[in-house]
Amino acid sequence: MIEKFFNPESVAVIGASRRPGKVGHAILESLKKSFPGKIYPVNPEAVEILGLKAYPSVLDIKEKIDLAVICVPAEKVLSVLKECKKKKIKAVIIISSGFSEIGRKKEEEKLKIPGLRIIGPNCVGVFDAYSGVDTLFMPHTRLQRPGKGGISFITQSGAFGSAILDVAAHYGTGVSKFVSIGNRVDVNEIELMKFLDGDPNTRCIALYLESVSDGRKFIETVKKLKKPVVCLKAGKSKTGVKAVSSHTGSLAGSYRIYSSVFKQLNIVEAKTTEELIDFSKALSMQPKMKSKRIAIVTDGGGFGIVATDEAEKLGLELPEFSGRTVKKLREFLPEYATPSNPLDLTGDSDSERYRLALEAVFSDPNIDGVVVIALLQIATLDESIVDVLIEAKVHGKPFVVCATGGSYTLSVARRLESFGIPVYPTPERAVRAINVLRS
Amino acid sequence: MIEKFFNPESVAVIGASRRPGKVGHAILESLKKSFPGKIYPVNPEAVEILGLKAYPSVLDIKEKIDLAVICVPAEKVLSVLKECKKKKIKAVIIISSGFSEIGRKKEEEKLKIPGLRIIGPNCVGVFDAYSGVDTLFMPHTRLQRPGKGGISFITQSGAFGSAILDVAAHYGTGVSKFVSIGNRVDVNEIELMKFLDGDPNTRCIALYLESVSDGRKFIETVKKLKKPVVCLKAGKSKTGVKAVSSHTGSLAGSYRIYSSVFKQLNIVEAKTTEELIDFSKALSMQPKMKSKRIAIVTDGGGFGIVATDEAEKLGLELPEFSGRTVKKLREFLPEYATPSNPLDLTGDSDSERYRLALEAVFSDPNIDGVVVIALLQIATLDESIVDVLIEAKVHGKPFVVCATGGSYTLSVARRLESFGIPVYPTPERAVRAINVLRS
Repeated sequence: MIEKFFNPESVAVIGASRRPGKVGHAILESLKKSFPGKIYPVNPEAVEILGLKAYPSVLDIKEKIDLAVICVPAEKVLSVLKECKKKKIKAVIIISSGFSEIGRKKEEEKLKIPGLRIIGPNCVGVFDAYSGVDTLFMPHTRLQRPGKGGISFITQSGAFGSAILDVAAHYGTGVSKFVSIGNRVDVNEIELMKFLDGDPNTRCIALYLESVSDGRKFIETVKKLKKPVVCLKAGKSKTGVKAVSSHTGSLAGSYRIYSSVFKQLNIVEAKTTEELIDFSKALSMQPKMKSKRIAIVTDGGGFGIVATDEAEKLGLELPEFSGRTVKKLREFLPEYATPSNPLDLTGDSDSERYRLALEAVFSDPNIDGVVVIALLQIATLDESIVDVLIEAKVHGKPFVVCATGGSYTLSVARRLESFGIPVYPTPERAVRAINVLRS
Repeated sequence: MIEKFFNPESVAVIGASRRPGKVGHAILESLKKSFPGKIYPVNPEAVEILGLKAYPSVLDIKEKIDLAVICVPAEKVLSVLKECKKKKIKAVIIISSGFSEIGRKKEEEKLKIPGLRIIGPNCVGVFDAYSGVDTLFMPHTRLQRPGKGGISFITQSGAFGSAILDVAAHYGTGVSKFVSIGNRVDVNEIELMKFLDGDPNTRCIALYLESVSDGRKFIETVKKLKKPVVCLKAGKSKTGVKAVSSHTGSLAGSYRIYSSVFKQLNIVEAKTTEELIDFSKALSMQPKMKSKRIAIVTDGGGFGIVATDEAEKLGLELPEFSGRTVKKLREFLPEYATPSNPLDLTGDSDSERYRLALEAVFSDPNIDGVVVIALLQIATLDESIVDVLIEAKVHGKPFVVCATGGSYTLSVARRLESFGIPVYPTPERAVRAINVLRS
């Protein structure tokens, strides 16, 4: 049933609008851009919207509808839902707000109609990079859509989720599915996690939660998941907890309890917004790390030191290289470079020096993971570093890349991410990311 | 004397090269792009480089030379220096490496020539956004140059500093002076800090240090500084300390001592690369904050909660708004928005709602600083938010902005930063930045 939210053959947009700027117009536009199936605008006053024939009601559509997206005013949602039920639409996304988040819990309860599966209300819906389903009403000029990848993201806050999606797209980070769950009148994060665990495109589940729907079921479900889960829990502080209740009308609960449950369940806790993306990226793109023994390879000595400081702080180890590795490194390193860990290839490195160094370091039995720092301000190091890093994947050991800089650096980072290599804008973030790959 | 490094009337590049890709070519190119004064390439084998008449030696130049940039091989540096002395050049930057960082301490000591002030060796030199001096050998296609601003940056690692400069440029963060101090054979961070304290364009001094040149002098100098100092100390861990000695040939010393001295001296310690930029930005652009009482204003409830959590963690307070403020907010807020702190203007906000809200919140006597979160994925909020935020400066209270997102968000962030409003890509970073404004 959940499948229909992500892989429908046909979608009806109930509340589709002819007026640019309106939510019902924007959703239709988003769908038209990427969804290859049938799209039916529903609007009693329109004949055609964005070149698509419009219908007064879903009941006027002859063909089968798999998914309905509802964006009519709150007071009209119930009657529209009843029509969906009559039309035998099984999956419904209610974008409309004006329910429990503003104290209208009773009105929301009425939306629970047997046989109808509902995401929302008060949400931005679904984005699926593979199927092209896109119910986001934010225009592409404001929110770029990410490409295909392994992160699936469940968010209780539509705005938070949308912004993160935009960040992912900007950085070239790939996404599988995105679900804004809103007030969770029916489908909740628990059912979605179970579904995503079985989704072949999902390699990591990322969560933004202010509260869980059902503590016991949450624990039972997560225990059985095979895929890694990263969670940012919002509403940790006294004032934060109060703010949660006026935001989503839910109870934030005690952060201490959450934190300890996360630990028991092997949920990776993201302490910040950045960590939610950073950790999900590493877990969706890289294998687990067998030990805490890493190497750091850099063309900027200072960055190597900063990364080393962070690594030791987190309990990672930088073992000495084996004799064989040192010998191999000596063969090609300039005399002013020292073959030790962290390995400073120095500021005149080119891709070939990286290639030889990574070949040696990845083959070292003392090393189970590598943080590669590549500073691209230097003219000697060019885009061929991308090929060198793709080649490094053959070793099967996890690695992350740090590339700090501006436009050029970002363009290289984007290419690397499209090949499943996670890139971070600072050495500390790269090190924290490889740290979550420890099994 | 230090002044000549940043405001020379003429610069000689000794070791200027005709071959693109060479350091001596790149430096000449950088200078030509932005330095309005006289530039003299020195190369015994060239007649002209990049359209400039070349000279066999500085002694062949008739005009007065204020600054020499040396990028000849290490073994030639001493003889070239002696020519500089003869030519009465007072300020010299030695880019060339191959001295104490590879154990050649004795050769380096010989470079100390009375009457000559030297920055380096083993550095990338100076960038001054106001005077146009730019000795960086990284091409503009790789390292964008930042615009004019209030941060001055002293770095012991050239690569670290260059990458940070590129990040600043990309984000629109303005810089005054940048100095890569290298092995510090003569001019060191202490003298530069004293100089920058008197530089009218510098409003905050940012440091990347692996060690200090002279502990006692460092303390004495910093005590007398009037401007805020932010410092990232690298070489905190056991392995990090070891790596420092092979990177810059200096002693990292005990991090615990550094950290406690920083506290005594009111140096703001940046614990990460990001904090170095984030904190410097806030301190260079915003006034101090009178108390720990802040307001958070957002169009994304989730972001407001995340920001609130971070604020309470840091000991900041979110007081309730005064009765007057609540009354003013009620006048224009939609019924589904609550006039409390954190203030969620909700996801259909436009600039006008922000304007009215900020007017009310900034005027509240309970509030001494504001974190404004503006999520620009929503079509209702457009670039006019820039004007609203510029207008908010009249209140004289410090504020920082969080804007999380991709390309469009970045373009708005850049405009804001050009008007002296610091922008952060996550709510946590914005809150940590306003926190350092507490006096």
